[in-house]
Amino acid sequence: MRTVDARTGIEVIEREECLRLLASRRIGRIAVVDGYSPVIFPVNYLIDDADVVFRAAEGTKLTAVGRANACFEIDDYDAERRSGWSILAIGRLEELAPSDRAYARLSALPVDPWADGEHPHILRLVGTRVTGRRIGGGAT
Amino acid sequence: MRTVDARTGIEVIEREECLRLLASRRIGRIAVVDGYSPVIFPVNYLIDDADVVFRAAEGTKLTAVGRANACFEIDDYDAERRSGWSILAIGRLEELAPSDRAYARLSALPVDPWADGEHPHILRLVGTRVTGRRIGGGAT
Repeated sequence: MRTVDARTGIEVIEREECLRLLASRRIGRIAVVDGYSPVIFPVNYLIDDADVVFRAAEGTKLTAVGRANACFEIDDYDAERRSGWSILAIGRLEELAPSDRAYARLSALPVDPWADGEHPHILRLVGTRVTGRRIGGGAT
Repeated sequence: MRTVDARTGIEVIEREECLRLLASRRIGRIAVVDGYSPVIFPVNYLIDDADVVFRAAEGTKLTAVGRANACFEIDDYDAERRSGWSILAIGRLEELAPSDRAYARLSALPVDPWADGEHPHILRLVGTRVTGRRIGGGAT
């Protein structure tokens, strides 16, 4: 079923399709609030049981905002066809402790960090609301 | 001159190169704070005198947060070479009034909206701090 806003032409992407698109990519962007401003970081990520999981380095703003709200985003567009889509996952940012049941499993998964250096923190977006929208009716 | 963090391998991109990369693209992402969460929107944009300018529709969260802080981001990466870069522009989001001197000029510029429908608001990121980083040493 396609749900399209008649005024804007924006099509709502159903949750299942959002999760499929999220699982099809490896690099996205996470926005957190740092002081009075949002800040966006590109991250390598994976989807674990519908949660976005990624690594963070020691000393980044990401680890300072553990348990705060964050917004994860991926998108794609075709400039010639003027079509595209974006997926948002908004939830609480939670750092996995080594004692968490999921820690060992996720440590072994290939969550490549965006940059070299130590990325000992495993962060997970939980309680997540996933939404997606598509313009131009483009295929994925 | 290349400035590279020895621990992370992240290269700092100089402001001039940041502005060149910003001017070379047409679609980026803007993050604003909506309630307790950051939210990311893809937008078509242009660079006007080092400011990021884009249109917003009636009723979007973007117009509700006029004059608040916002973060604009573009990035690119090469998965095979594990190289990429990202540029951030953080500043105050300001809506241009029709009486503003720049309004007529910017209204005429091709700031294509990401979606169809009316986008009567022209928003500009002002007082902006532009930063960039590159990993993997890839060319642009």
